[in-house]
Amino acid sequence: MPAISIERQLLQDKATQLRIDSILSTTAAGSGHPTSCASCAEIISALFFSVMRYDPKNPRNPANDIFILSKGHAAPILYAAWAEAGLFPRADLLKLRTLGSNLEGHPTPRLPFVPVATGSLGQGLSAGLGMALAARLDQSPRRVYVLMGDGETAEGSVWEAAHVAPHYNLDNLCATIDINRLGQSEPTMDGHDLDSYRRRFEAFGWNAIPVDGHDLDALLDAYHLAAETRGRPTIVLARTLKGKGIPGEEDRNGFHGKPIPSDQAQKIVAQLEQSLNGHDPGWQPNLPPKYSPPEPKRSKIADPPYSPQSKPEATRRAFGDALAELGKANSLVVALDGDVKNSTYTEDFEKVAPERFFEMYIAEQNMVGAAMGLAAAGKIPFASTFACFFTRAADFLRMAAISGSNIKLVGTHAGISIGEDGPSQMGLEDLAMTTAQPDFAVLYPSDATSAWRAVELAVAVRGPVYIRTSRPKTPVLYGPNERFELGKAKVLRRGSRALVVAAGVTLFEALKAADELKDIAVVDLFSVQPVDVDTLRECADACGGRVITVEDHYLHGGIGDAVSTALKGPVQRLAVREIPRSGKPEELIEKFGISAKAIVNAVKNIGRE
Amino acid sequence: MPAISIERQLLQDKATQLRIDSILSTTAAGSGHPTSCASCAEIISALFFSVMRYDPKNPRNPANDIFILSKGHAAPILYAAWAEAGLFPRADLLKLRTLGSNLEGHPTPRLPFVPVATGSLGQGLSAGLGMALAARLDQSPRRVYVLMGDGETAEGSVWEAAHVAPHYNLDNLCATIDINRLGQSEPTMDGHDLDSYRRRFEAFGWNAIPVDGHDLDALLDAYHLAAETRGRPTIVLARTLKGKGIPGEEDRNGFHGKPIPSDQAQKIVAQLEQSLNGHDPGWQPNLPPKYSPPEPKRSKIADPPYSPQSKPEATRRAFGDALAELGKANSLVVALDGDVKNSTYTEDFEKVAPERFFEMYIAEQNMVGAAMGLAAAGKIPFASTFACFFTRAADFLRMAAISGSNIKLVGTHAGISIGEDGPSQMGLEDLAMTTAQPDFAVLYPSDATSAWRAVELAVAVRGPVYIRTSRPKTPVLYGPNERFELGKAKVLRRGSRALVVAAGVTLFEALKAADELKDIAVVDLFSVQPVDVDTLRECADACGGRVITVEDHYLHGGIGDAVSTALKGPVQRLAVREIPRSGKPEELIEKFGISAKAIVNAVKNIGRE
Repeated sequence: MPAISIERQLLQDKATQLRIDSILSTTAAGSGHPTSCASCAEIISALFFSVMRYDPKNPRNPANDIFILSKGHAAPILYAAWAEAGLFPRADLLKLRTLGSNLEGHPTPRLPFVPVATGSLGQGLSAGLGMALAARLDQSPRRVYVLMGDGETAEGSVWEAAHVAPHYNLDNLCATIDINRLGQSEPTMDGHDLDSYRRRFEAFGWNAIPVDGHDLDALLDAYHLAAETRGRPTIVLARTLKGKGIPGEEDRNGFHGKPIPSDQAQKIVAQLEQSLNGHDPGWQPNLPPKYSPPEPKRSKIADPPYSPQSKPEATRRAFGDALAELGKANSLVVALDGDVKNSTYTEDFEKVAPERFFEMYIAEQNMVGAAMGLAAAGKIPFASTFACFFTRAADFLRMAAISGSNIKLVGTHAGISIGEDGPSQMGLEDLAMTTAQPDFAVLYPSDATSAWRAVELAVAVRGPVYIRTSRPKTPVLYGPNERFELGKAKVLRRGSRALVVAAGVTLFEALKAADELKDIAVVDLFSVQPVDVDTLRECADACGGRVITVEDHYLHGGIGDAVSTALKGPVQRLAVREIPRSGKPEELIEKFGISAKAIVNAVKNIGRE
Repeated sequence: MPAISIERQLLQDKATQLRIDSILSTTAAGSGHPTSCASCAEIISALFFSVMRYDPKNPRNPANDIFILSKGHAAPILYAAWAEAGLFPRADLLKLRTLGSNLEGHPTPRLPFVPVATGSLGQGLSAGLGMALAARLDQSPRRVYVLMGDGETAEGSVWEAAHVAPHYNLDNLCATIDINRLGQSEPTMDGHDLDSYRRRFEAFGWNAIPVDGHDLDALLDAYHLAAETRGRPTIVLARTLKGKGIPGEEDRNGFHGKPIPSDQAQKIVAQLEQSLNGHDPGWQPNLPPKYSPPEPKRSKIADPPYSPQSKPEATRRAFGDALAELGKANSLVVALDGDVKNSTYTEDFEKVAPERFFEMYIAEQNMVGAAMGLAAAGKIPFASTFACFFTRAADFLRMAAISGSNIKLVGTHAGISIGEDGPSQMGLEDLAMTTAQPDFAVLYPSDATSAWRAVELAVAVRGPVYIRTSRPKTPVLYGPNERFELGKAKVLRRGSRALVVAAGVTLFEALKAADELKDIAVVDLFSVQPVDVDTLRECADACGGRVITVEDHYLHGGIGDAVSTALKGPVQRLAVREIPRSGKPEELIEKFGISAKAIVNAVKNIGRE
């Protein structure tokens, strides 16, 4: 027999074994998605046991090809593949979805072979794009493979990534769509119309290859063609049957996310085992070439160039300045923009490190998803846009938190203090969105010095960080030697009448109020999450528990809640309590009750209610 | 001269006047986007003064054609068009962006001719799709026109809508892209490559018509062709120049969002005025045909069919039951699904009212955006998916809040109590996301009866409503005659040792704790926003201010914060404080500290810290 045939028999056996393991593990768990695994068994087999070059004993080898399971509900077959490749014993698969096991219902980076958590559909391609950008930056031999479901291509984020990947000529990125025709609840919009998929991806600039997704030869040919294609990414459009190989469920609606009852599963597995060729010549991993990533330059950045004698400066401007410095000092830092670099000032980073600057255009989901991919590849990505537009990527932030992703997000133009542009441009829920996620560090600098230090801190902290910055220029409060730490607030005024906690533009309103009232304490919160419990408690105690928070943010989920949770005591909240509107910043600060005057009134009335 | 030529001169003059007004108003405001207006002056002129049928004195006439300015930063030209059409005096345009005026920086429905707020790019097409669905449902003669910028087509939400609109054969929908080549900070990915736009939209199933966007004849031809096209939507791809007609700024990068200095503006306006043909034969509006929307059936739904003697039922199931009843009782109610109708049970609505059920597939942004469009057309849309996946549409929720949109969102499968599927499927920040928005009503039913009543209430409340439901079956607490109100909690147990406030699955943990400890008060919060300050205060006072909240939600932004804000007093929060993992629901409830046992411990230790 010719060699190809033996390989094909081996791969077919592997596919069958993957099906068996997917069935057995989901049946053992009593939940999961065996039919969604069955449709991609040949795809996974081809990739894991022929196409991809990787060290199955070291999933974190930087030269490994990468596999991202965007259709995260097919987790059992991903786990089966790594068990089959020898990373852990097959018996572990039966612990699927149990509390003691990292083989969770959907993949998370608790497992060393999972770069980003998946399970919220339509995110994997963006992460793959980020990893492909990182690989090119590092001249890594790595190729990046992403497996999507067909249903998830309805998600717009897929088309954001589809638009950007050819723009960056990412020929090291190869996605596959497991076109099994059936969604969770009914057939997809496009069914088995492979030509519709082909037309769409080709129109977006991809090399599209339609194949029978159960034909291993066709799959291998497609992946080889993909590897040879220069200048653009490839999408393999694999026509498959949901539930392939599971009698009674193949290509039938109504079996999504349903494990097979135990007795039935045993019969099916016995049948599948009979179909094994048994021609196992001993699979040899296709190890990656020897490769060392470039030695990174990781210097510290200079101290901030501002002092209380400097002229007022916007925190967004200081962010841009610091990021540009960081670009020179640390070669791991990359920046991503959503077509607002002239407002966020990341254009300065682009000038000093153009090869590490990625214009992601007006597509915030993909921007954050790509940042997650870059972080998974060891980069330190700063993604920035207006604070309000990060809500566009809220689900990506959620998955970044689950992933423990080392992304740094900077929201500019927070709050009503942007003024005339009106409510659609005002980020008034960004603190609620980011502090809701455990493990997200949230910093809210008020002046240029602390903004600069926040950027520095973001690099020092491992995990997701959000920095909130403002549009207006504000006085510089701190000198270049002032130390800032995660979880540490700054006491600007001591007093006994009331404690006012603020950050950003409202801190200066608090200081104005303090100038008028003299005996109030003012704290610059700086670190919203984690919050400085000790300092807050000490200052609150000195003020007899009379605490006022004031913030350019909606009432819920911001500084008021953070301080209240920290103090476990009463807090009087000044915040934006209704949908704002266009106007001059100072008019709006007055109108929506977060001005010095409002603070003075609150202090005068506190405890009198 | 032939009639067409006179019309063209009139339309050219209107376009020139729109440019003049856009320049003058942004110069007066000292901010705004004149160059983004200038590129679409001919498009707006053609639509408003020739193509669209509408009553310029009554923008809310249900037979009017609809115009949605998706590129909301071009607001000044929208306002200029309505002034030119005679809705309000041109002099008002000079109040642009001032606090006293509704002519805000980006359009909001404070203006009667704005169906949905825009300004977060890439949302208008979804709203247009929703309005087109509503028009077809009501057999309205209305056509829906959406104007997008080219930069915003990078947003995935555009492609979600682009995918669904042809699927529903919406030939009453006509979008235009103002392809002016320049984004905010640099050229777009596609520049003036009209063919790339054409290929992509054709591949998605649209009738695509490339035109010179400054050629009125070509535009009129395109819109007439669009009106005659059956079975699919049309996209007019208009090649334009940013800053067209503004000397020195035409087709040049670096002039986004920059008003023209006053002296320069005067010169340019004088020049533009000279170019007016002055052939104004008196514009006559193209009034809509006589049309009355169908008389809606608006019956009340029956009382809930559950009682404390019923067997346990999931709140998501009761939601599905109630929605199906509502489908029969109220013909204004429509339902939208994200391919989870067999989990949310909206498949029951589909059975009773298939023509009012819209499968939106796995594309939550477009689902919510379409719901906003349906609401703007007078429908009462219920859009539902897993609670976690509404984060995908967080920016649409934000814009729905700004719009005061009458949408009803129902999140199912909230929290860790979904169990084995793992963190990616657990909605643990949905309360933070929704309560952050002022004017969002947020209901969190705990049993089948209250879930049914929540659905009823959602219809009664005008404005955005979010209902949080759970996956597990829970005992029925309330009989069919129990009354539920927005902003009203239920006191289930009275006591003096501590008050435990809960909702959803944790309410039953609280009741178990109360069975053990006897003298604790238990409140079913039900209405998270607005929150029942009086009841909470009364119960808290009875317990000496000892209050514990327990919730299947992350620590920040949920029930704990809502209760703390209401009480302005200390609250002990039991909530999920870290990224959870797969496991059995009851194991997770124990592990993450929101079980009866955790409540008992908290009660025993409260005040002892």
